[in-house]
Formats: sequence, structure tokens, C-alpha cells
Amino acid sequence: MTERTYLDWNATAPLRPEARAVMLAALDAVGNPSSVHAEGRAARRVMDEARRRVAALVGAEPANVIFTSGGTEANATALSPSLRAADGRPVEVLLVSAIEHPSVLTGGRFSADAVMPVSVGTDGVVDLGALERHLAALGREGRRALVSLMHANNETGVVQPVAAAAGLVHAAGGLLHVDAVQTAGRIPCDINALGADLLTVSGHKLGGPKGVGALIRRSEAVSWPEPLIKGGGQERGTRAGTENVAAIAGFGAAAAAVRDLAEGRRLTALRDRLEAALVAEFPQTVVFGAQAERLPNTSLFALPGVKAETAVIGLDLARIAVSSGAACSSGKVAASHVLAAMGVPAVLARGAVRVSLGYGTQGTDIERFLAAWRTLAQALSKDSRDIAA
Amino acid sequence: MTERTYLDWNATAPLRPEARAVMLAALDAVGNPSSVHAEGRAARRVMDEARRRVAALVGAEPANVIFTSGGTEANATALSPSLRAADGRPVEVLLVSAIEHPSVLTGGRFSADAVMPVSVGTDGVVDLGALERHLAALGREGRRALVSLMHANNETGVVQPVAAAAGLVHAAGGLLHVDAVQTAGRIPCDINALGADLLTVSGHKLGGPKGVGALIRRSEAVSWPEPLIKGGGQERGTRAGTENVAAIAGFGAAAAAVRDLAEGRRLTALRDRLEAALVAEFPQTVVFGAQAERLPNTSLFALPGVKAETAVIGLDLARIAVSSGAACSSGKVAASHVLAAMGVPAVLARGAVRVSLGYGTQGTDIERFLAAWRTLAQALSKDSRDIAA
Repeated sequence: MTERTYLDWNATAPLRPEARAVMLAALDAVGNPSSVHAEGRAARRVMDEARRRVAALVGAEPANVIFTSGGTEANATALSPSLRAADGRPVEVLLVSAIEHPSVLTGGRFSADAVMPVSVGTDGVVDLGALERHLAALGREGRRALVSLMHANNETGVVQPVAAAAGLVHAAGGLLHVDAVQTAGRIPCDINALGADLLTVSGHKLGGPKGVGALIRRSEAVSWPEPLIKGGGQERGTRAGTENVAAIAGFGAAAAAVRDLAEGRRLTALRDRLEAALVAEFPQTVVFGAQAERLPNTSLFALPGVKAETAVIGLDLARIAVSSGAACSSGKVAASHVLAAMGVPAVLARGAVRVSLGYGTQGTDIERFLAAWRTLAQALSKDSRDIAA
Repeated sequence: MTERTYLDWNATAPLRPEARAVMLAALDAVGNPSSVHAEGRAARRVMDEARRRVAALVGAEPANVIFTSGGTEANATALSPSLRAADGRPVEVLLVSAIEHPSVLTGGRFSADAVMPVSVGTDGVVDLGALERHLAALGREGRRALVSLMHANNETGVVQPVAAAAGLVHAAGGLLHVDAVQTAGRIPCDINALGADLLTVSGHKLGGPKGVGALIRRSEAVSWPEPLIKGGGQERGTRAGTENVAAIAGFGAAAAAVRDLAEGRRLTALRDRLEAALVAEFPQTVVFGAQAERLPNTSLFALPGVKAETAVIGLDLARIAVSSGAACSSGKVAASHVLAAMGVPAVLARGAVRVSLGYGTQGTDIERFLAAWRTLAQALSKDSRDIAA
């Protein structure tokens, strides 16, 4: 038997059949969307349809969607001092929560000394009081802030109080960018309800292809940032380069195929079953962020005595794919900045295993994981007893 | 009959069947190349194979290939004041030929006042004497230059004296970046023979998919630029973001499938047949850059009295896809900066029609084009006589 159980959907999701079908059609058509002939116009129509679908996913206008090569590029584009607040004044300082994705923590095009972190609580939720104090202090100095706050964290799945943050940011005359890479297509993610001025979405996390994402603005009143990739009129002059038509088409089809609410209820039930069994069988299990509202599909936990690195390899040999925190830094085994920001001791954080589910996950996958975890946890804790003896 | 004749290969090429096949396999596999489990390792292996193939296309080492979202991003990444010359000193000035792609003309991350143009002759070839004078003047000021010179121009097809330019640049202690988007896979394009320190290649111009390109360095002695897209350890820390595995695989397969020399001879014969017929039937025809060495597949010409805009639309109705110069600026009908730099009068430049061929082009395509051009040219010149009368 070679069948494997894939439980690493927060790293990347399998391509949805709807996305695959439109991608094949787009790959088989020639045409540069900037060309005026029939082939070029057909490529443009494919992009227009995808733009409508991605816009609809987050309640935005199609004209306010700019396609990029992915979530990281969209974040890097968004975080720019060229953005102007509603009154036309530039933003000067970037406030980022301590649990953001590395592409946000790095500060985009802000200089390092203009980037300030905002703390989070032990529950993994951004500290709105700290945000408010930062905004007030900047206000006294007459400086405007761009705030970047993710909709849900990729490691813990903890959903952030984005709408409340938007209220604080806008009251202070600032702008809010929201990285919705892990939420779009999974939970309701309406740009107006969130109050996000700019929103980042990624294709491959919701069943579209890798290599495509979007930066979306709430309205024409919000300026686009200066292009990060310059030198062509594509994407309304905001992102140069021949458009990845097939991937954009696949992103659009995946966006149209998501059924976030129904799927969310189903995944929550599976995730809760997993966690209930883990805690029942191994009472020392710590589930991170469990006190907070979380994505339906994500569980990050640790069992003292079991190192994540060893667990991920052992589960892989048992034909189960999970991760130890985020996948986005190649191969490096570093302590999670997310758990560190939540005040989790390093020794416990080193045991954090992330199980993330998706549209293809079934109850049998959870059973397989639990069976493998039992074997592994017993072997590893036996090992640690042997070593201790 | 709905068959169309596609003669706009410099804008984008149809996907090669070899590329399509590996892309389908990659799209059907799940896995983030940064993940440690089997799915992640399989995605990494797909990328490693593509990296070897793209490296082999230009005679580079696989470790010196960084994948990007396309040629424009590779150019924008390369043009950075963070680059250091061989002696470790930073480059301070960017010299660009006047006929570069907009993504190079815009200067990347150099400030506008640090970008200087280098003139070209009426034959469309960069003026090496002018380049030498620029380098000497900068040398007297103690400033080092990064020079960006394309291997062949996308509009005229004129091949540039890159190896000779490399000699001048290196003698002056500078660095050379070469945009080989239009040459890789079409004519020999060996990074060592060219003497390029950094080389840009694009997937979709050589029969790979849109949405992928590469920045390639000649050796480890050349520093990578600071990342343009930051926030993850991918691509050796030089380009963050989940890799577009399927597109990278397709790029590799297309690179492995090119047969530049044999195909070049075949296309040169077709192109020469086209131009000979045009000039024989319409002796007023001007072929731009014809005095210089050109790509085998490209012909840019004008027939006084025939506007390119009208011709492209008329040919499109006759089921033939060509372009008026470059496709890369969406829909805007601007005068060609390339022809302007060559001293071509604006009234003649407005008639420039580009016919570009590729691996799928056959003699019948040339015949179809010539038949349509005859009809169009006679109708349009009749119109202009009527108007004049």
C-alpha cells in the first residue's frame, strides 16, 4: 500500500479539479494578454474572469485586484512607505504583529528602524491595547502608521480581531493591511467587513496553483503602493511582467469553488475529534491557541518528550505528512517566532506539530494520524525513559 | 475554416508538449518544496531537475540559478546597487543601452539620477565607443558601473556585441547584466562565452509557461543582489515565496527541448524568404536592423503609407497574429523607444510591424502572411491615394 495521508494543507493544498481544468485550457492557448490580436484578447478575457472570481471571494471590486506571483510578493508590495492615508498624508511607520509571516516581519520597503512590533497574548491573539498605545504615541509625534495584521496565523490557526484593529487604525488616520493567505476560502473573509485597506490572498492555499496571489484594495480611495516590480503597464501599472495567465485562471476557478462555511463546519468537527483524542490519550498534550477563535482546519500541539523534528520524520515514514510549524523557511529548523511571541517555553515549542486539514480530508485520515501518533508517542516516550534511566 | 497563423513568438510562444507533460505531473502532485516530508522532497526534486536543465541551457552551474516569476522580475532583481564588483566595491551607477526592455530602462533599484543611457547606432547595435567613454568618465570619478545590455532586442531582433561589451566593462572593474530573454533557446547563449556576470532568462519565450524566469550568475565570485522579494529562505535566500513548482518544471523541460542551432537555420531561411518577398513586391519596404546580425526568427519592417495599428488589426481579421513592436505595455500605442533610439523618423516608426517565428512556424504560415499582407497593403495604399486625391 502506497497511499499517503496529507495533513499539511497550511503549507500547500492539492489543486482543485476545477482549477486544473481551466489551467489546462489556458496552457493550451497561446497569447500574451498585452497583445491586441485575438490570441491576446482571449488571454485577457481569461484574466478578467479570474479577476471577477477572486474579487467575489473577498467582496471586492474586480478593478481593485492586482495579481502577483504569490502571497509573499503581495505582502512585499503592500508594505511600502509610498502608501497614503485617507487624508493624502504618507504613512511613515509600519506596525506589525509579532506573529506575522516572515514576508511581513521583514518590513517590505520600510527601513528597519521604521518597523515596530506589536505584542500578542499567550492565547496567540494580538494585543489590541498595545496596538492602541502604539497608535496614540505615533499620533502625538504626528506620524501615521501602516498596520499589518494577519487574518489568521499559519502555525496556530488563531484568528485575529481584524475588524476591531481596523477601527483603531482608522481612528488614528492610519491604514490597515491584512494578510489573509490562510483565511480566504476557509472562513468568511470580506474586505469590507474586515475593514482592511489592503488584503493579501494566495492561490495555492485554497486549492489554486502555486505561483499566484493577489493584492486587493477595499476602494479606489486607497492608493496603490508604488510597484515593486517595475517596467510594464500590466495590472494597471502596479505590477509589471507578462501575466501568469494559466495560474491566474486556476486561482480564479479555485476561488469560485470554495464553500467556506459548510466546509468549515465539517473540518472543525474533524479537528475537534483529533484534539479530543490526543488530549484523552495523552493528557500532557498542549494545544496552542486553543483558548482563542481558530481556523477550522488547524491544530498545533506538543506532547512533552516528543520533539517535532523526530515526530515529523517518524510520521512521514508512516506515510503521513504534517509539519513542525511553518514550511516557508527552507529546511532550517528554527524555533517558532509565533510560539516565542506567545511566551511558550522553547523546550515545549520544539515539540510543536502542526496538523492542517482541507477539502479532501476525511475521518479516516484523522484515524490514521491518531494510530501513527500512538505508536510514535509510545516509542519516543519509551526512548526518553530509557535515556533517562 | 478557423485556423489561425500565429507569428508573434517574441510576445509569447506556445507551450512545448514536453513542458506541458511535466507541468501536468507537477500540478497533480501536492507538496511545498520547503516541507521536509515526502511530498515536499518530491517537489524539491522536480525543482532540482529543472534547475539543472535551465543551467545547462546557458552553461551555468545549477547552484547559480535563481528562479523568479519571469524575466521582468529577474531584471528588477538584478539591477541593484547592492551588487559588488569583483574587488568587493559596490556598483554606484547603472548604464543601460537605450533599446533595453522597460524593466531595465526603469533602472530597478537604482535612483533615477544614477541611471545613464548608452546610445545605439542606426543599425540598432549599441555604440561600444559610447560605452567605453562612459566607463572611462566614471573611472576618473572613481565610480563603478553595473552595465545592463540585452543579448538581442525584442523588437528588431538585433543581436548585441555582448562579449565585446563584457571586455570593456570588466576592464573598468564593473559588472555586466545581460537580458537574454529573447535569445536563450534561440541562439547560442553561454554565460561564460558572453562574459555576463548576471543573466536573465524567461520561460514563456522559449516554449515554457508564462510566470517563470531565472536570474543566473556566472560564478560564485559574483555576489547575488539583495532580494527584491524578502521574507523566506527560498532560492538560497535570494527570492522569497513558495516556488511555482509546475511552472519551474515546465521551464526546465522547455529548456531541455530547445535545439537552437538547427532550429535557427530553419527559421532564418523562413524569415529571409518573407523579407525577400516583401521587398520584391513592395520595394519601399524598410526592414529595421537588417544591416546587423539578427535573431533568426524576427523581422521588423514598415511599408510607408501603412500604419502598424491598422495593419495589426487587419491581419488579425485575416486570422494572422503579429504585433506592432513590443507587447509588454498593455494596450498603449506609444512610439517605439527602440526605433527612436535608432534615429528612425516617427512617421516611419509608426508603420513598424513585427513578425516573429518559432518552432511551430512552417512555410505555409509565411505564405499566408504574404497573401494577407498583399491584400492589406494594396487596400491601405489605395485608401491613402483616395484620401490624397
